[in-house]
Amino acid sequence: MEFKVQQLQIKAGKYKVILNPEDANEIGVRTGDRVQIKDHSYLTAIAEIGDMISRGTVGIYQDVCEKLGKVCPLTVNIVPTSRPSSVGFIKKIMDKQKLTQEEIHQIVLDIVKENLTDIELSAFVTSSYIHGMTNDEIEWMTRAMIDTGEKIEFDTHPIMDKHSIGGVPGNKISLLVVPIIAANGLLIPKTSSRAITGAAGTADLMEVLAPVEFTADEIKTMTEKVGGVIVWGGATNIAPADDKLIRAEYPLSIDPRCQLLASIMAKKGAVGADCVVIDIPTGAGTKVHTVEEGKKLARDLIELGERLGMSVECAMTYGSSPVGRTIGPAIEVREALKVLETMQGPNSLIEKSTALAGILLEMGGAAARGGGKAMAIETLRSGKAHKKLKEIIEVQGGNPNITYTDIKPGEHKGELLSPADGYVIEFDNKRIVEIARIAGAPIDTGAGVWIHKKKGELVKKDEPLISIFSDKGWKLTNAMKSAEKEYPIIVEGMILERVKPLRVL
Amino acid sequence: MEFKVQQLQIKAGKYKVILNPEDANEIGVRTGDRVQIKDHSYLTAIAEIGDMISRGTVGIYQDVCEKLGKVCPLTVNIVPTSRPSSVGFIKKIMDKQKLTQEEIHQIVLDIVKENLTDIELSAFVTSSYIHGMTNDEIEWMTRAMIDTGEKIEFDTHPIMDKHSIGGVPGNKISLLVVPIIAANGLLIPKTSSRAITGAAGTADLMEVLAPVEFTADEIKTMTEKVGGVIVWGGATNIAPADDKLIRAEYPLSIDPRCQLLASIMAKKGAVGADCVVIDIPTGAGTKVHTVEEGKKLARDLIELGERLGMSVECAMTYGSSPVGRTIGPAIEVREALKVLETMQGPNSLIEKSTALAGILLEMGGAAARGGGKAMAIETLRSGKAHKKLKEIIEVQGGNPNITYTDIKPGEHKGELLSPADGYVIEFDNKRIVEIARIAGAPIDTGAGVWIHKKKGELVKKDEPLISIFSDKGWKLTNAMKSAEKEYPIIVEGMILERVKPLRVL
Repeated sequence: MEFKVQQLQIKAGKYKVILNPEDANEIGVRTGDRVQIKDHSYLTAIAEIGDMISRGTVGIYQDVCEKLGKVCPLTVNIVPTSRPSSVGFIKKIMDKQKLTQEEIHQIVLDIVKENLTDIELSAFVTSSYIHGMTNDEIEWMTRAMIDTGEKIEFDTHPIMDKHSIGGVPGNKISLLVVPIIAANGLLIPKTSSRAITGAAGTADLMEVLAPVEFTADEIKTMTEKVGGVIVWGGATNIAPADDKLIRAEYPLSIDPRCQLLASIMAKKGAVGADCVVIDIPTGAGTKVHTVEEGKKLARDLIELGERLGMSVECAMTYGSSPVGRTIGPAIEVREALKVLETMQGPNSLIEKSTALAGILLEMGGAAARGGGKAMAIETLRSGKAHKKLKEIIEVQGGNPNITYTDIKPGEHKGELLSPADGYVIEFDNKRIVEIARIAGAPIDTGAGVWIHKKKGELVKKDEPLISIFSDKGWKLTNAMKSAEKEYPIIVEGMILERVKPLRVL
Repeated sequence: MEFKVQQLQIKAGKYKVILNPEDANEIGVRTGDRVQIKDHSYLTAIAEIGDMISRGTVGIYQDVCEKLGKVCPLTVNIVPTSRPSSVGFIKKIMDKQKLTQEEIHQIVLDIVKENLTDIELSAFVTSSYIHGMTNDEIEWMTRAMIDTGEKIEFDTHPIMDKHSIGGVPGNKISLLVVPIIAANGLLIPKTSSRAITGAAGTADLMEVLAPVEFTADEIKTMTEKVGGVIVWGGATNIAPADDKLIRAEYPLSIDPRCQLLASIMAKKGAVGADCVVIDIPTGAGTKVHTVEEGKKLARDLIELGERLGMSVECAMTYGSSPVGRTIGPAIEVREALKVLETMQGPNSLIEKSTALAGILLEMGGAAARGGGKAMAIETLRSGKAHKKLKEIIEVQGGNPNITYTDIKPGEHKGELLSPADGYVIEFDNKRIVEIARIAGAPIDTGAGVWIHKKKGELVKKDEPLISIFSDKGWKLTNAMKSAEKEYPIIVEGMILERVKPLRVL
């Protein structure tokens, strides 16, 4: 049927059109059905129905206009067509049937191409969450996620990589691990993420030092040149299905195990990694609540790695307390840089970074078995890691001569004081992150929380428990109010109802 | 945070706004998160993120504008807020936990108020489909569906009602059942649906005779006046959750048993029905494939009725063949009206209608047990049912003096001829409906398929198997082409590959 085109000034993120209810009924189309738009060529779009579109007219989102050509046509022919075959495969998952490799590939491809509606995508993640996937299916899912995106193929091997399962604030270790590995002659093209619900992702941290948005080709060239990079994976087209799946999982607060595994390993597989160390923080507030659970996850990751031809080792780490004493982009970078420059800094940061780097050094053959950690510490202490980070900063277009004292926290500062003498008996990671975010992290790089007292430490009345930094005065006020309203840190003997006046410096 | 308002010329069907990605990040909002819009009052909306909205601006859908007041404000304050509590309850279903009555009520209320995103709604129907619901939960779901919509409360009782599980083409029996019941002094406020994937719903049929869109109050008044009505439920606000659930279930081709039960019984409960007969067509092509399955469904419906204080009886009917010989609005009405006027017509239609009406007459106390069907036949034969239908047509605003000969099929007619002598051995209901739809049903009321030969009947070569009617020549051509391409009827000995020329009359 021929329709007049009404251009909508909105992008839908997928090919969508809106039909008048009577027209839709006439051509037998309901919300979520697919239609074929015939102009010079054919385009399949998702149909919506709305009475703000008049009869004989089709509302066309910008995405469709752009796809149809430079000039949006005045009329188009629209006929109903069938749903993508993926929808039938998703129904199979709902019915607890197993899928073939081809079927899984098709689902992932349709997700990447934005061919599925939210209803269909949600049915996929919900039923995968409920029924799980077999190891075969997880392998196929991972391969499909790799194959539906960009891949980096290095001429030299081995390629090293590292991943941390999220949930621990202040986990800035990649800033140390990557230069330690690269300084020892191994290649490590580290793609990382920005904070989503956290205060600073590795990409947010590195961005304090240098640009982080590069194409896959640039990542390859830079890595071959200096041995390593720390870039934002989101700027590439590596395993693009991942972000699209998260868009459906996040609102449901689910993280189906099968997709967690596939997501991690697809990103490693796509950069051609041979050896991968995976940091599994365990404990209260993390994604992995018990050591048993962590071990199960580790075994699954190792097995999936084997299926994909990657050597994987996992390290269970203590995840109930932040790594180091800083949360937020600038101050985290300052803390990491200080360690690289001076070997001065929190034990939790130095220990964790060198332990994980040590595993990678052994896996890559740079260190003898058992000798990795010592080599990592020596690389740090000798200044070689610092020198390598400067090279990485430079190759990514940053200023290699920056020192930790150049990196300033936000100019607005407040302190949360201890209301009592005693030991810190509760330390709420989630609240600390929340406060850092209210203060402006990760967008405002100067925003964050400096932790003076961690769990188990002794504090005197009116000593600061945390300092809050912010680039903007009003954000500091909000963050202080939030901290005051619900203390993120509980000191033994502290009266929970009492509200302590805040000292704004 | 304060935002400039950019009005979007689109209705979203729910309260939605679009934020620039950087703004969204700044206030910590992701796609599908909720925000509170503060103008004079507060309104919670679903956040979308899109880069066609510039920084500092919020894109506001028409629904939000209208809700905010007569004149859309120029700026609004937007802060993140939490998701509806329903989302947590839906997560419980995903995790196979049982819900409380309050939790189910809240989910249904949020569905009705369009507070859930498609992702959340789909997670609900998908997990309900996978895990099912207990009888308690189904009862609570039904009550919630009744209570979140409009209800009709009659002063006189009993109130009778009838429902047919879908899937059988040509099922025009309500046009006979309703007047038979009302003619015997019982009240029957029949709300019905329009065809969604079929060729004609009961509401589509009745609309050939009279208007069908009325409010709940009007339904009550008309029923009290003449004893019965046949109206479109979609024009009322009776059990509004149902349509919204179907919107998520239809694209996934699922019909979770728990929601099928709740949907049927909520619509009966909302009109205050005391006695309900449910027609369960069973067999190939219907929703209920075996008698065993049908019996299980019947037991579930009866039990749910008991819980809700309704007396329910179910009749398993033969569903593999159309009821009567007509498919499509006008010709179905013509066939039904002819029976009412002359008692002439297909046995399948007269038998089924009087059998189901008989059950209702017994349930309502108008007939003695065992005497219902005879009373129903007598009501038909005596012309009382016809007289009652005329009253119903008149009270709904139609022409009561219409006779079956006034109702003309579409002016364009073609015939599909038998390619061989023999018995009809296959009869494909779905294809027949498809052909009727291509011919224009249910929108073009004259469109449809007249069935000359049903399964088991003898046909001679070149005798017509079906006649196809259409209001428009080009639709007839398309329908004929479709019928020719894949015959809906197979005659014994027919060569399946041979294509028979069509005779267009």
